[in-house]
Amino acid sequence: MTVTSAIPATMRAAVLHGPGQLSIEERPVPVPGPGEVLVRVEAVGTCGSDVHYYRHGRIGDFVVREPLVLGHEAAGTVVACGPGADADRKGRRVSIEPGTPCGSCAQCRAGRYNLCPGMRFLATPPVDGAFCEYLAVQQDFAHEVPDSLTVEEAALLEPLSVAVWACRKARVAPGDRVLITGAGPIGLVAAQTARAFGAGEVLVTDVLPHRLALARAAGATALDVSRNPLHEAGFTPTVLLECSGVPAVSSEAIRTVGRAGRVVLIGMGGDEVPLPVSRVQHHELEVTGVFRYAHTWPAATALVQSGAVRLDSLVSHSYGLAEAESALTVATHDATAVKAVVHPQR
Amino acid sequence: MTVTSAIPATMRAAVLHGPGQLSIEERPVPVPGPGEVLVRVEAVGTCGSDVHYYRHGRIGDFVVREPLVLGHEAAGTVVACGPGADADRKGRRVSIEPGTPCGSCAQCRAGRYNLCPGMRFLATPPVDGAFCEYLAVQQDFAHEVPDSLTVEEAALLEPLSVAVWACRKARVAPGDRVLITGAGPIGLVAAQTARAFGAGEVLVTDVLPHRLALARAAGATALDVSRNPLHEAGFTPTVLLECSGVPAVSSEAIRTVGRAGRVVLIGMGGDEVPLPVSRVQHHELEVTGVFRYAHTWPAATALVQSGAVRLDSLVSHSYGLAEAESALTVATHDATAVKAVVHPQR
Amino acid sequence: MTVTSAIPATMRAAVLHGPGQLSIEERPVPVPGPGEVLVRVEAVGTCGSDVHYYRHGRIGDFVVREPLVLGHEAAGTVVACGPGADADRKGRRVSIEPGTPCGSCAQCRAGRYNLCPGMRFLATPPVDGAFCEYLAVQQDFAHEVPDSLTVEEAALLEPLSVAVWACRKARVAPGDRVLITGAGPIGLVAAQTARAFGAGEVLVTDVLPHRLALARAAGATALDVSRNPLHEAGFTPTVLLECSGVPAVSSEAIRTVGRAGRVVLIGMGGDEVPLPVSRVQHHELEVTGVFRYAHTWPAATALVQSGAVRLDSLVSHSYGLAEAESALTVATHDATAVKAVVHPQR
Amino acid sequence: MTVTSAIPATMRAAVLHGPGQLSIEERPVPVPGPGEVLVRVEAVGTCGSDVHYYRHGRIGDFVVREPLVLGHEAAGTVVACGPGADADRKGRRVSIEPGTPCGSCAQCRAGRYNLCPGMRFLATPPVDGAFCEYLAVQQDFAHEVPDSLTVEEAALLEPLSVAVWACRKARVAPGDRVLITGAGPIGLVAAQTARAFGAGEVLVTDVLPHRLALARAAGATALDVSRNPLHEAGFTPTVLLECSGVPAVSSEAIRTVGRAGRVVLIGMGGDEVPLPVSRVQHHELEVTGVFRYAHTWPAATALVQSGAVRLDSLVSHSYGLAEAESALTVATHDATAVKAVVHPQR
Repeated sequence: MTVTSAIPATMRAAVLHGPGQLSIEERPVPVPGPGEVLVRVEAVGTCGSDVHYYRHGRIGDFVVREPLVLGHEAAGTVVACGPGADADRKGRRVSIEPGTPCGSCAQCRAGRYNLCPGMRFLATPPVDGAFCEYLAVQQDFAHEVPDSLTVEEAALLEPLSVAVWACRKARVAPGDRVLITGAGPIGLVAAQTARAFGAGEVLVTDVLPHRLALARAAGATALDVSRNPLHEAGFTPTVLLECSGVPAVSSEAIRTVGRAGRVVLIGMGGDEVPLPVSRVQHHELEVTGVFRYAHTWPAATALVQSGAVRLDSLVSHSYGLAEAESALTVATHDATAVKAVVHPQR
Repeated sequence: MTVTSAIPATMRAAVLHGPGQLSIEERPVPVPGPGEVLVRVEAVGTCGSDVHYYRHGRIGDFVVREPLVLGHEAAGTVVACGPGADADRKGRRVSIEPGTPCGSCAQCRAGRYNLCPGMRFLATPPVDGAFCEYLAVQQDFAHEVPDSLTVEEAALLEPLSVAVWACRKARVAPGDRVLITGAGPIGLVAAQTARAFGAGEVLVTDVLPHRLALARAAGATALDVSRNPLHEAGFTPTVLLECSGVPAVSSEAIRTVGRAGRVVLIGMGGDEVPLPVSRVQHHELEVTGVFRYAHTWPAATALVQSGAVRLDSLVSHSYGLAEAESALTVATHDATAVKAVVHPQR
Repeated sequence: MTVTSAIPATMRAAVLHGPGQLSIEERPVPVPGPGEVLVRVEAVGTCGSDVHYYRHGRIGDFVVREPLVLGHEAAGTVVACGPGADADRKGRRVSIEPGTPCGSCAQCRAGRYNLCPGMRFLATPPVDGAFCEYLAVQQDFAHEVPDSLTVEEAALLEPLSVAVWACRKARVAPGDRVLITGAGPIGLVAAQTARAFGAGEVLVTDVLPHRLALARAAGATALDVSRNPLHEAGFTPTVLLECSGVPAVSSEAIRTVGRAGRVVLIGMGGDEVPLPVSRVQHHELEVTGVFRYAHTWPAATALVQSGAVRLDSLVSHSYGLAEAESALTVATHDATAVKAVVHPQR
Repeated sequence: MTVTSAIPATMRAAVLHGPGQLSIEERPVPVPGPGEVLVRVEAVGTCGSDVHYYRHGRIGDFVVREPLVLGHEAAGTVVACGPGADADRKGRRVSIEPGTPCGSCAQCRAGRYNLCPGMRFLATPPVDGAFCEYLAVQQDFAHEVPDSLTVEEAALLEPLSVAVWACRKARVAPGDRVLITGAGPIGLVAAQTARAFGAGEVLVTDVLPHRLALARAAGATALDVSRNPLHEAGFTPTVLLECSGVPAVSSEAIRTVGRAGRVVLIGMGGDEVPLPVSRVQHHELEVTGVFRYAHTWPAATALVQSGAVRLDSLVSHSYGLAEAESALTVATHDATAVKAVVHPQR
């Protein structure tokens, strides 16, 4: 490890001890291991999964049994390099890809590292996340970002990666008509991303006026399905990006997809969900889901750099590390909340 | 039309008038139109959809409102050619692809002619089928068969086409482990077809000993799931070909599919079916269905010709045209029935 | 045919009689056949193939043996409908897809109608083209255009289709770095199209300053390879769209493509061309060519409508029908010529 | 490292010192590093690249500057395990995948580990190969083989992997007609592999009667192109697997491939080779090459285990390690030589 006078021995971290129990604690600054870099964390987006862990202490089989640091949408600056890491990376601004795969299992060898059974993913028990001042990560997963990106944008390359991965799975291209159900952060990013992949028409559905307005601002057509049912909209998508996770919404949306259309289930809707199988069969729809992403950072970075996707407009609230709890709860009382960002250095 | 002395003016046909009401009637022999050939029908397989129409008078939205001739797995000999059809085809033995697409809609232009909204398909209201002595079909869809195939095999290229199409959708190839749920005619053909596509391991599940024995004879491993639950079998398929149409079977089977696996839903299981969506998402499974087939006859023919697939072993019962009703009912009282074939010339 | 008073019995056409021999002649206005519409031709782009036929009287095996009307990038207004054509189409503005496939051969059935051996293609012997006042075309291939497109843009959907087809073949998407060799009309359109498919970096090479300036205006980086050799540019493309047709350019460009890169050969470079096969092998490059296009009009139309691609900037010269010869020769004496458009109604 | 009394301190190795200079030398038995296993080498196939290094001391840019052990088609038994390697692997029979990629570069992360720039490949300077008694390899690349395979078959899973990879690239499946140019070891294995992928018709060309006979024995049709030119054979393949490396053969063969056909260039034919580009363009052929293979061992193993591919018939000559030079030279004086295998323990 390259010693740098500016790196303290300890740091603050926002630690989850159980449902609704978050405290700011002093922890040792991690020492970067072989091939790792130490990143001073400067911005961390709050994700629905963070909120879910905060509220319920678990997501499905992943249970918070030991104190856990949340946060996995992170960016910052490399301040030190572990043994074998490229010393030139010190001082570089980076966006952190939060999952580190094993690199040698069958899934990794096949290029599907997001499906690696040995994946270590930030803020997923038992791996601590990024609501803290310093983080040690494998250098390959600390992606350098150009100067033109703000640190908030660099952090939000993570949710953008989900959208890029979904658009790749759906093979979105010019000529496509894309339906996006749910105008939360992922739906809003997906709308921009689908356009960046060349989709001519993008229709976003939701029931919250604020979110529908953001969808319109993102260049999409917005449909308030509390007033106008989707099946009366006369829109036959070639691609459905399901971002709501609501089974009834999924089912109705799939019924509108045209022959040979592609459906990507992004929102989590439960273990078993009724789907319109006869539509899938008669129209030979391709249905798949996304589990995180792989190989997305360069494309996501390029999309923001070129202006094809704008991430700054997603940031509705900003907090210091001491206010991490507010970042996790703001959505419950402020309907205009989209993406809350924590700045650990504040 | 080339006049041939041997062609009579009328023919016998087995006509469905309502649920359970089948009668043998005299009908005019069709006159082949432009580009059509007239085929003397020599063998017609009985399909589950024929049985369903016979019993219920409808399949979903397809309702038998006018008297309907059933049967769509047909083969025979070209006996006359309509205007513009290739006169050399006379005398050739052919297997009939039972759907004629429009050829000019978006789906046809894209090569997905099975999804053509204007498709005319034999034995699907209001288009009469092949339980009759003569049939006029577009010459492109009367596929010549080599001498080495029997006429029964030529007829059964239709269900083989379903299996070929499903294996293509699933991209079955050497290295794959294929699970087939349901050892009915389609499951049994699919087992052979998956092996012909190179799959090393094929596991077929069912509960009927007779069918499991046929699966074993087809080169597959057979699992009696009434005795040994699938999830205890320790088999992690890369591909699932779901042929049972039973929702609980589909769901359990999908839960065994490995990461990035492919699922093709072949059996019809109802309009809306509960599926293990979280498995689809976490393992990024690709789920699709098949609606008939496209471009399959040459491959199917080659598979039978080379011996890679044997269709003759599927034929459990044979009938003359007058016994068409027996062909449609044999499965209800004979558990060993697999495929009943009607010979209209008898 | 719907009779319309405005349709005259004869029309003017620019007819090629041999190399360099073009004359304006009076010909009968065609009568639309079954399924055809009669289009009043309002704009026709001049293509390199038109110029080649004009100069040499042939392109490879296609020889002008009978007098031939050139022009295949055409748009206009439907003025009459043949039997069976949709009468509502009268009065609609259309862009003409110039090839009519047979619809029933193996290539057509497979969705590759551009490879149909029976294709009839405008301005390809012996099929007359669009340098005339009226044209009868199959209604499926007279694509309606939105009001926002000018008739010149509607005509130039044809070269845009080449670029769309090439980008599809190359699977261009966000994250790609695209090299385009040759900034002629196709290269310039391809540059915009690649960006519309999401490519972050597009590098266009040429030696003519005027064309390089147009490439820059199209949003690409432009490289004058007469001054700066490509192999010194430090650009490792993921995709090469070769538009020059110059063998030495192709070869050098392929040598820069990165591992698993995709190469589409668009420019015609002769029957047999030396290619860097060891690069293709060691880097497992995918090399293919494009022969016209299939299923491109809707996507091309959407790209122009959304503003993602601008075609008007390509039009450097406009002529009336009487000046068709000038349209075919302007490029030989005016280095700033890009696309000359003929307006048959003038 | 687990110490085993049976492992000696030194071993014999056949070392190349320069063109035609091979000597048997005593070298230290390697000590398996972290994650490595030590394999007692029991069979090593001789490859054309070994012969080329032996004769010329180089292949293209790869130059033998230091003494080099040849041989990369190897199998044997695990006799010891390095730190972190699975101790249970001791005693297992394994086939060695000869390339070890870095696991963390962009190509590796994308699943294309065969294109890893940091690949270390046996018998490729400066990495020593397998013509020796013991080899230390990463445990992931020592693939366990079932008891039913002989050790020679286990060694020849390496050339079979080339064929599997090529058939995957070409997407060989039932319905395909496959042309294989060149009936050397790779061509002969490719013929069987293409059939195992479902190809109905496989045509193999060569000029040597002995090889043509082996092609016939492999289930292919064989064409002696010294007597019957390929272009007169009336065979229009959907897939070409070019195994000769002879430019004129490649070019003529590509000219026979049907529309939308796929071409895989396997034989090495030089840096730059004339190809029929206009055929590639007009027929939209897909041309690619193979560089080794990735993810092939499980499929290759299954193909041999099921009997779909027989490798034993390829072995024409067997030698002890002391006769390694004979294995490298036998092909020069014995026209019936196909595959010479070295047994290092003899």
